Amino acid sequence: MNKNNICETLRAFRDGYISMDEAVDRLKNLPYEDLDFAKIDHHRMMRQGFPEVVFCQGKTIDQVVAIMERLVKYNHNILATRATPEMYKAVAAVIPDARFHEQARLIVVERQPVVADPDRIIVVMTAGTSDIPVAEEAAITAEVMGNKVRRVYDVGVAGIHRLLAQRQMLEEANVLIVVAGMEGALASVVGGMVAKPVIAVPTSVGYGANFGGLAALLAMLNSCAAGVAVVNIDNGFGAGRLASIINHMR
Amino acid sequence: MNKNNICETLRAFRDGYISMDEAVDRLKNLPYEDLDFAKIDHHRMMRQGFPEVVFCQGKTIDQVVAIMERLVKYNHNILATRATPEMYKAVAAVIPDARFHEQARLIVVERQPVVADPDRIIVVMTAGTSDIPVAEEAAITAEVMGNKVRRVYDVGVAGIHRLLAQRQMLEEANVLIVVAGMEGALASVVGGMVAKPVIAVPTSVGYGANFGGLAALLAMLNSCAAGVAVVNIDNGFGAGRLASIINHMR
Amino acid sequence: MNKNNICETLRAFRDGYISMDEAVDRLKNLPYEDLDFAKIDHHRMMRQGFPEVVFCQGKTIDQVVAIMERLVKYNHNILATRATPEMYKAVAAVIPDARFHEQARLIVVERQPVVADPDRIIVVMTAGTSDIPVAEEAAITAEVMGNKVRRVYDVGVAGIHRLLAQRQMLEEANVLIVVAGMEGALASVVGGMVAKPVIAVPTSVGYGANFGGLAALLAMLNSCAAGVAVVNIDNGFGAGRLASIINHMR
Amino acid sequence: MNKNNICETLRAFRDGYISMDEAVDRLKNLPYEDLDFAKIDHHRMMRQGFPEVVFCQGKTIDQVVAIMERLVKYNHNILATRATPEMYKAVAAVIPDARFHEQARLIVVERQPVVADPDRIIVVMTAGTSDIPVAEEAAITAEVMGNKVRRVYDVGVAGIHRLLAQRQMLEEANVLIVVAGMEGALASVVGGMVAKPVIAVPTSVGYGANFGGLAALLAMLNSCAAGVAVVNIDNGFGAGRLASIINHMR
Amino acid sequence: MNKNNICETLRAFRDGYISMDEAVDRLKNLPYEDLDFAKIDHHRMMRQGFPEVVFCQGKTIDQVVAIMERLVKYNHNILATRATPEMYKAVAAVIPDARFHEQARLIVVERQPVVADPDRIIVVMTAGTSDIPVAEEAAITAEVMGNKVRRVYDVGVAGIHRLLAQRQMLEEANVLIVVAGMEGALASVVGGMVAKPVIAVPTSVGYGANFGGLAALLAMLNSCAAGVAVVNIDNGFGAGRLASIINHMR
Amino acid sequence: MNKNNICETLRAFRDGYISMDEAVDRLKNLPYEDLDFAKIDHHRMMRQGFPEVVFCQGKTIDQVVAIMERLVKYNHNILATRATPEMYKAVAAVIPDARFHEQARLIVVERQPVVADPDRIIVVMTAGTSDIPVAEEAAITAEVMGNKVRRVYDVGVAGIHRLLAQRQMLEEANVLIVVAGMEGALASVVGGMVAKPVIAVPTSVGYGANFGGLAALLAMLNSCAAGVAVVNIDNGFGAGRLASIINHMR
Amino acid sequence: MNKNNICETLRAFRDGYISMDEAVDRLKNLPYEDLDFAKIDHHRMMRQGFPEVVFCQGKTIDQVVAIMERLVKYNHNILATRATPEMYKAVAAVIPDARFHEQARLIVVERQPVVADPDRIIVVMTAGTSDIPVAEEAAITAEVMGNKVRRVYDVGVAGIHRLLAQRQMLEEANVLIVVAGMEGALASVVGGMVAKPVIAVPTSVGYGANFGGLAALLAMLNSCAAGVAVVNIDNGFGAGRLASIINHMR
Amino acid sequence: MNKNNICETLRAFRDGYISMDEAVDRLKNLPYEDLDFAKIDHHRMMRQGFPEVVFCQGKTIDQVVAIMERLVKYNHNILATRATPEMYKAVAAVIPDARFHEQARLIVVERQPVVADPDRIIVVMTAGTSDIPVAEEAAITAEVMGNKVRRVYDVGVAGIHRLLAQRQMLEEANVLIVVAGMEGALASVVGGMVAKPVIAVPTSVGYGANFGGLAALLAMLNSCAAGVAVVNIDNGFGAGRLASIINHMR
Repeated sequence: MNKNNICETLRAFRDGYISMDEAVDRLKNLPYEDLDFAKIDHHRMMRQGFPEVVFCQGKTIDQVVAIMERLVKYNHNILATRATPEMYKAVAAVIPDARFHEQARLIVVERQPVVADPDRIIVVMTAGTSDIPVAEEAAITAEVMGNKVRRVYDVGVAGIHRLLAQRQMLEEANVLIVVAGMEGALASVVGGMVAKPVIAVPTSVGYGANFGGLAALLAMLNSCAAGVAVVNIDNGFGAGRLASIINHMR
Repeated sequence: MNKNNICETLRAFRDGYISMDEAVDRLKNLPYEDLDFAKIDHHRMMRQGFPEVVFCQGKTIDQVVAIMERLVKYNHNILATRATPEMYKAVAAVIPDARFHEQARLIVVERQPVVADPDRIIVVMTAGTSDIPVAEEAAITAEVMGNKVRRVYDVGVAGIHRLLAQRQMLEEANVLIVVAGMEGALASVVGGMVAKPVIAVPTSVGYGANFGGLAALLAMLNSCAAGVAVVNIDNGFGAGRLASIINHMR
Repeated sequence: MNKNNICETLRAFRDGYISMDEAVDRLKNLPYEDLDFAKIDHHRMMRQGFPEVVFCQGKTIDQVVAIMERLVKYNHNILATRATPEMYKAVAAVIPDARFHEQARLIVVERQPVVADPDRIIVVMTAGTSDIPVAEEAAITAEVMGNKVRRVYDVGVAGIHRLLAQRQMLEEANVLIVVAGMEGALASVVGGMVAKPVIAVPTSVGYGANFGGLAALLAMLNSCAAGVAVVNIDNGFGAGRLASIINHMR
Repeated sequence: MNKNNICETLRAFRDGYISMDEAVDRLKNLPYEDLDFAKIDHHRMMRQGFPEVVFCQGKTIDQVVAIMERLVKYNHNILATRATPEMYKAVAAVIPDARFHEQARLIVVERQPVVADPDRIIVVMTAGTSDIPVAEEAAITAEVMGNKVRRVYDVGVAGIHRLLAQRQMLEEANVLIVVAGMEGALASVVGGMVAKPVIAVPTSVGYGANFGGLAALLAMLNSCAAGVAVVNIDNGFGAGRLASIINHMR
Repeated sequence: MNKNNICETLRAFRDGYISMDEAVDRLKNLPYEDLDFAKIDHHRMMRQGFPEVVFCQGKTIDQVVAIMERLVKYNHNILATRATPEMYKAVAAVIPDARFHEQARLIVVERQPVVADPDRIIVVMTAGTSDIPVAEEAAITAEVMGNKVRRVYDVGVAGIHRLLAQRQMLEEANVLIVVAGMEGALASVVGGMVAKPVIAVPTSVGYGANFGGLAALLAMLNSCAAGVAVVNIDNGFGAGRLASIINHMR
Repeated sequence: MNKNNICETLRAFRDGYISMDEAVDRLKNLPYEDLDFAKIDHHRMMRQGFPEVVFCQGKTIDQVVAIMERLVKYNHNILATRATPEMYKAVAAVIPDARFHEQARLIVVERQPVVADPDRIIVVMTAGTSDIPVAEEAAITAEVMGNKVRRVYDVGVAGIHRLLAQRQMLEEANVLIVVAGMEGALASVVGGMVAKPVIAVPTSVGYGANFGGLAALLAMLNSCAAGVAVVNIDNGFGAGRLASIINHMR
Repeated sequence: MNKNNICETLRAFRDGYISMDEAVDRLKNLPYEDLDFAKIDHHRMMRQGFPEVVFCQGKTIDQVVAIMERLVKYNHNILATRATPEMYKAVAAVIPDARFHEQARLIVVERQPVVADPDRIIVVMTAGTSDIPVAEEAAITAEVMGNKVRRVYDVGVAGIHRLLAQRQMLEEANVLIVVAGMEGALASVVGGMVAKPVIAVPTSVGYGANFGGLAALLAMLNSCAAGVAVVNIDNGFGAGRLASIINHMR
Repeated sequence: MNKNNICETLRAFRDGYISMDEAVDRLKNLPYEDLDFAKIDHHRMMRQGFPEVVFCQGKTIDQVVAIMERLVKYNHNILATRATPEMYKAVAAVIPDARFHEQARLIVVERQPVVADPDRIIVVMTAGTSDIPVAEEAAITAEVMGNKVRRVYDVGVAGIHRLLAQRQMLEEANVLIVVAGMEGALASVVGGMVAKPVIAVPTSVGYGANFGGLAALLAMLNSCAAGVAVVNIDNGFGAGRLASIINHMR
């Protein structure tokens, strides 16, 4: 709640337009909408530059539909993550222009696409082909939030020449997202090649002592290259969102 | 086995009403009923104020039905947790007034509802919509045990104003149950806002380095706010039971 | 910041006693004192019924002294946890009536002892003698905060008759704190004997697969007895604080 | 290969009944039968008093059938653990007198039942009803190997009187197997009540911070009662086998 | 509290020798002595065949001395584990005939040595020389409790012939204690060679991915040989105690 | 990119056959083929002596088919690991001479079988029958890469004589692969019997405190026998590949 | 090695200024200096905008001195992390203008301070006073690399008003570093209040189930607020370096 | 025990040179020397090509001296690992030509240096300077066992050009040992560059979520490059020993 809101409320009260009770209420509450099972944060657009994103996992289909119906009323563009095809089908019945990215498990409504600066590129890299679904979650998230994205997939360190061949693209990038499972070494190598922010996304790709992505996660946290920060295992959305915030800094 | 029971038995023996063998038996055993696969603790109502609660997970349907049939003979109100719809169906065939809360996975028989003190409110909060099933297990458990419950769902700390808007309700609460997955931060923030007992329930909501609720569990155990205690991951029942015990203290 | 504070500020502003800027400031800030390295929360007494407690671990001696000097200005009773003898010596030089409980590692200033209700007893139990330091942290915390405490030490379940002999005391308790290392089984047995809130404190007492208290922690979280909640390993203070909150409920 | 075997072979060689090559072979090999995918240890009956037990998990149905067909040729009684109903069906087709204990997942062939000493009783206890399948694996294993077994189920520590009521049976036991999930506290309490060997079997019964039986496992390993030893999570067979070995000692 | 005690008390009460209050008291309490910081379980000798053993770790020197002084009053032989040289020095000042086994960290008072059956041998084995301190804790514990012990040290599986050379001794053993760090494989090999109870003691000997004994612990729990049970890491005492119980069975 | 390639490019540029741009490109890129979702490393045959191996897990069927179609164009022999029957079916439709090893989950195309040296034998051993699928992955990988392989299955240490009977074969081996689940002790025993490289493969065979192969993994890493190195849990391919590299050394 | 370097080398070779051997060498090697025990990466200034930073932990004092002596020859400003006072003393003997920040364990040489943009502020926050050493490592790193830094210490969520009072400062920040131990909740709350990049640094401050910072680490990775990325536990340097990279983006 | 030994013994017995008892003894025992606290495996030189290596950790100084005195009697070259300076001092008093490598913690006696093949090079690489002690343990072990070793230190992946500059040396290597802490990525990059056996040694260098080397260990086990096998954390000796075995293969 910024200063202006407080000032307005104070003036309205002093000048008698609102009662003390009303003033107290306004001063204690920021705008959100209460659906009982969810408090929709309509204020987030203002506060964070993009509307609240719906995390579908663990919600019922009815809950997802109800939340998206409310969000779409007040926002041009909305995003839902970890959605199932069944959820999409139900959403599309009430929001026909919603699109579904199955591999990335994203539902997107994009009525006023955010214009992207073509000179500020987010590069999304994967170590292997199996990491692509997480990378797509990151890439599409960044695109929906108004960024130009380049995908460089399957450049894991076991064939380091494939990565070295991308050196120019790395240098043109403004922000890099590195998605890797197994031992997650790609983040360290990339982090040492550039002086750009590197957002590392460990994936659960692998088996055995990978322990569901733990190996890649620990490797990335212990990266010997400075300039690398890490998000949760398989959290493509978080990486895309953070990359977008950094990419929009002026 | 309290002192009165011992005194009674002693008197009966001294006065010749019961033999020494019988006295020994009584003194060595508290009342329970043996179904071979289960020892039903009919004494618990007396000892703990509520009959034994059936933990259905890992039991066969036949075992659940048999246990509930026995319990319902000696008690007005009974509760079974972690029940499946199939279990409920089988129970309802023999106890027609049993009700099922599917989301909370509870079977409830309530023939003499316990009267709740309207001034002593248990507030059950969740960080997100996906935490609601666990919260409902806590809330319904508390209600069945005779408490007034208020639900405040989806007030996670990423939109702190949604929580701050509940400040008055927090102050009116007698006991608080905070249900949260992911990083479980809600417990710490709530714990710092009130001087009420806060029972924190970590949930397995989340993914990746959440490790099935471990992240929220550790966060809650390490809460920088005093006055917070923690129950097992997804243990809504335990939280509701403890909140009820505290709420009935005089 | 409660409603009364807001009302007062609003009235002062309407009536011209304070400027809009000052009103904005007051409305945005609750009282705390800034020492640069620490923000002392003088508001906590009002909000939580006891002044901010100093967690000494990781702080320099100078920082501890500075914080306690400020706290003692505005409060009658103060408490510092995880203090070393060196810290106490430095504190005693400026606050001569500070006392030190070495085993419990607590520094206590108690100028207006809080009166305890003699009928509401907190029972602090330990499984073994080695758990006593943590138990003392809990017991003294509760006493300083105005509670009558009874200590029952070394009643671990390997000699169950020692525990059973305490049955009457358990029944007279209002709240129970169970402190246990190794396998932490005491909490479950006690939890099954009474219908009182049981706060379980796992300790790091043990060795090998105890893993620094992990064994007792997991055991207590998985307690088959309802009514048990758990605080962090070795967190005697947290248990004492929570027990005090519950014990003061009316 | 014991001394007698070596002596016999040496004599046979000295006296010219066998060639040096044959002697070498005998001295280097103990009897087993090679099925390529399995080396059946026919020597085990002699070495360990019971034929090799088939661990079915991870084997194909064909492999289980082939191994059991060979074993049944040379032994009166055989046992297969972790068997599925499908495996049993296939085994029964070739060994019609094989029986299946579904809950315990055991296939048993018992042509010359081992006579049990009625005065040496193995008591198998569970903390809850959900632990019964593991307990049955232990109990039936012990019975097949020639032991008298008494089952005492659902005597978890949350209702300690149910356990205390069994005191006499505990005292009559020769060996005790304690099967418990959740916090596994039963092993400690029983271990403190008797001076008999207690074999503790943690089960994966529970949820959340139980972590698949880890909580009970750690608790049992850290038991404050001496005289308790632990086998793998859900390893009813191992407990039954060890109890039988101890019970047959003279 | 056995049946006889109850009978005696009942008779004394019926015949008027004791009041009802006294009867109640006796019936509720088994004998122990309360030192405030410790409840000495004098009943254990009767219940478990050996007096309470003092676990010194985490106790102050004064506490150890006080407990041992009381124990020595009522018992001929006493044992204290995990003792430091300082503790021993203080104990020896008041109990001059106390002896100290430094490597095993045991204080022993042995005024009426328990006679051992020379035909029932407990064999204590170690995989390496570094495991000897834990093995000595087991061996001396067993000796003090009246067992004949043979030590076979440094027979780890990397030189399997050293173990095979002990085959005869293994066959003469009644109970085996296998002490091993690193990968703990010795327990499995020994368990497969004999049909005797094998008590496996993982040690914290090793480094790196040994994780303080976790590697050996898990290996022993997962032993492919039946008849192996496991005690806590470095728990020589527990193994010796259990071996003694088994070895005294008739 | 070796020196010769650089020299050639430099000469071509100096002599005007290629432009500077082309020279730069060549110098910055090693040969690989870009399918967007995969960068096929055609250079690997030259660099590592065998074409890139397809890790099928996490790839779509279409991706597997597309990659194999490209690989088969430039290579005689190709290998795909962790393939499903569905993947094989789709591959076989376009590469009819592809073969499937279902148990080992391998797709193999072998148009110019690599000739194996019959005197250099890789021995693949398993502790149990359930470990065979992983062993087959190792064995077939080694065979496809031109090695003679001998399989010795089900020689776990619980029947040590079965292993000792293989001593001669162990001595004839050039490299050994030891595949074992549960406690993984076989690697240590074998490692102590020979002075050959031992590649240990922990498997996820087992249950309970096996934790998906963790027990065997830790045991193998902590092997008391030198000369043992470990690959990932269930990683038969990696073991076969490394054994082949060692076996081809001259 | 960027395109320009390659072009220059190519031209020099074509025009006969350098031999083919020399050209090959240049093309294969980027500049670094070999001290045997260290390869000093003099190229890093060019590649990443700041010279190589010395990680002192695990190095001998002589190694640290030797590396810093070489670095200072070619660079104006140098930084060494995790330094001990002894290391500093030895460095100061040869680089007299080196300064030591003891709390942050940093050695700094700053001969041409990098000019900071006063409008681009990095805010470094801590949850508690005990987190300050890590925060100082971050803050000083950022300052040395040419950033304006504001410190906001001790604003943990247990007194949320202390944080809310900083709202304006948060809004003025360009990048935020949030340093927190215990449950690490501050990162989530801050992440929800602003649309700026938040770099979360878990610290090892805490005890018990904190497990050396694991609790805060997991909490931060699972943050329900988007826009948060995490570095290693106690890695103040990494956070400061990444914040600086982001803050210098244009 | 090979066939010849058995034959000899058999002949000696047949021909009456030895008694049956003696024959049995010989057939049951391979040569080792029993010091009570250690069984010295004099047979190992014959079986494994190098005498038993003394693992000093956990042994007393007296034990180390006694074992080395016996070993030096029968062997030209001996090696002791994880030795302290105190151990060396005591050993040097009785074996004056023993040398100590302090950084590598090795005691070496080398009376008949094994001749190394100059064309078969073992390359030992480290990611950082802090990994050198472990690398030296590997390098000296390999040298003592008769190998030519080249050291390439501080070529971690954060400055990939330092590694690429070593490409020729990598190609000349016969076996590679890669020693790395932190995220351990060096093993994967090297493994992808060569078709040589790569032995990866994770080190405990690092902090925070490194968890004592766990991060590097998991990364190396999950390496996306085939041909990499892993030894225990900080196990330089094991890597050197295995590399030597491989390097001596013909």
